[in-house]
Amino acid sequence: MVIDCHGHYTTAPKELQTFRDRQIAALKDRSLAPAGGTLEISDDQLRESVQPQLKFQQDRGTDVTIFSPRASAMAHHIGDAQTSLDWSRHCNDLIHRVCGLFPENFVGVCQLPQTPSDVLANCISELERCVNELGFIGCNLNPDPSGGRWTAPPLTDRSWYPFYEKLVELDVPAMVHVSASCNPNFHATGAHYINADTTAFMQFLTADLFKDFPTLRMIIPHGGGAVPYHWGRYRGLAQDMKRPPLPDLIRNNVFFDTCVYHQAGIDLLLKIVPADNILFGSEMVGAVRGIDPETGQYFDDTKRYVDAATLPEADKRKIFEGNTRKVYPRVSKKLVTRVRKRTVD
Amino acid sequence: MVIDCHGHYTTAPKELQTFRDRQIAALKDRSLAPAGGTLEISDDQLRESVQPQLKFQQDRGTDVTIFSPRASAMAHHIGDAQTSLDWSRHCNDLIHRVCGLFPENFVGVCQLPQTPSDVLANCISELERCVNELGFIGCNLNPDPSGGRWTAPPLTDRSWYPFYEKLVELDVPAMVHVSASCNPNFHATGAHYINADTTAFMQFLTADLFKDFPTLRMIIPHGGGAVPYHWGRYRGLAQDMKRPPLPDLIRNNVFFDTCVYHQAGIDLLLKIVPADNILFGSEMVGAVRGIDPETGQYFDDTKRYVDAATLPEADKRKIFEGNTRKVYPRVSKKLVTRVRKRTVD
Repeated sequence: MVIDCHGHYTTAPKELQTFRDRQIAALKDRSLAPAGGTLEISDDQLRESVQPQLKFQQDRGTDVTIFSPRASAMAHHIGDAQTSLDWSRHCNDLIHRVCGLFPENFVGVCQLPQTPSDVLANCISELERCVNELGFIGCNLNPDPSGGRWTAPPLTDRSWYPFYEKLVELDVPAMVHVSASCNPNFHATGAHYINADTTAFMQFLTADLFKDFPTLRMIIPHGGGAVPYHWGRYRGLAQDMKRPPLPDLIRNNVFFDTCVYHQAGIDLLLKIVPADNILFGSEMVGAVRGIDPETGQYFDDTKRYVDAATLPEADKRKIFEGNTRKVYPRVSKKLVTRVRKRTVD
Repeated sequence: MVIDCHGHYTTAPKELQTFRDRQIAALKDRSLAPAGGTLEISDDQLRESVQPQLKFQQDRGTDVTIFSPRASAMAHHIGDAQTSLDWSRHCNDLIHRVCGLFPENFVGVCQLPQTPSDVLANCISELERCVNELGFIGCNLNPDPSGGRWTAPPLTDRSWYPFYEKLVELDVPAMVHVSASCNPNFHATGAHYINADTTAFMQFLTADLFKDFPTLRMIIPHGGGAVPYHWGRYRGLAQDMKRPPLPDLIRNNVFFDTCVYHQAGIDLLLKIVPADNILFGSEMVGAVRGIDPETGQYFDDTKRYVDAATLPEADKRKIFEGNTRKVYPRVSKKLVTRVRKRTVD
């Protein structure tokens, strides 16, 4: 089985964006939208909207996608806590409906109602709702709800701890994932995403977060940002700072996905980072949508790169499935349901 | 000949920091320091202070270091334009003195008196002074004078253009190099530096800066941040955005150094990025000072990695010398002087 740990609902019906546009307009004029608001999207529209993902799964030979709302649209910097709560709930509910329509293909991960002046209570309650009521198996945690201003404390700061306590209690991981950038310095998918990955890793390297939460698990997407390429720098910095060796530091807590869009990059990742700390992911349909003229294949068809890499088959199985089952333990229950459903069918 | 394009004066006599401490204290109490201030550092102290660099050059088989003030100490976010001007002049003057004492070993590159509310006129005049009067061959340009708040416009914004006009006129390049981070999210050498490299590259990718300045040359240090590792992502983004292919986009204008501290990272860099766009650099004595227990060699002895890489000898010669002569054309005059001096000796 091949589980893709990193898929966003980037193809949602346009009604979702229409709602969002109205919600943003209402920030200036409260008469424009009712509190909360509603979405009028039919099941048929949802079915239609995820055809690209389903086709890619089939064409590329992946089975299940861990599916979350569009990351760039989370935009936690817009509006206030209520804006973010309403928006997150709608986005998460849509993911839930898609997962209900295609239980064999998608398992849900939630967006959190973060805001720059963070109200973690909302994040905790939305996480609980999504995991306990909607059957989600994880969340996307934005280390920079300010959208490129980086005004929040580091992820290792104790102000985040109440949220981590809930993650540990529910036994779900967080993917560290920023959203859109309102800072003109940072292109979202080309700079802000990758910078956030690198930044989060260095925060984890320099603090004792995982001593305080030995079972907390964080996925750093996009192949860990710059980290594997600069593994020597990070090993050296850790050594200079008397921190543990990197494999010990990340062992049970920090994982990289395989969203790296060329063979040489994947080869480096698989060579350098312990296989136990890598989860297969493609980010499809996501940041890069074109076909690589050098290969004739989609840039984000990362399964091809992993398939082609020199690596023991046992390690590939871990990366495609085993590690993801460990990091997202609730996925296995979903997959059992999936097999049962198939048997019944 | 091996030219190291990336060395900082991280071993300056403690009197330099004493001056800086006084200067910062005087920001709160103007009575504490005279305008400008003075440095009492003898030539013997300077000679003594660069012994580590000289020893590394000899031990590692490099000839000349393109030498600039300590990057993390530029700290453009501290004080105002005058603070930054005084501090930059002192730092640059020290580099000039070191280069005068060891003309065979060091060639100068200057720090710029940037500030968050940028006063480019000061940068232009200090660049002119350093190039025309002190014989410097380039500068370090900080894309984020706010020190981790990223409040300046992108490097492709027209507000930077007067400075670029001066770079072009003087025919000197800029290394894009941030300084200390006052944002607790960003560890300086582990996150802020690497993020800035990635950020600058994406700014260059998305704008027409080099159409406006066809002879402007920028060096992105630390192996180009995350860029080579994510080369497929950047190729794909460029394609999706109808931008030129990356080799065309960077050809005469954007260069990466080799400050990547492990063999696999260097191998990726040399495999992926055109050899014409890579300059040898080590950042020594710099970010990582330890010995890699896996190799028994210094992490930042990047010459070993390049030596060991599979690459035509002609390409290695470009990386070690030829490209640097092209990007920093004024270095050749310095090296002629060096050879002449040797002949006279």
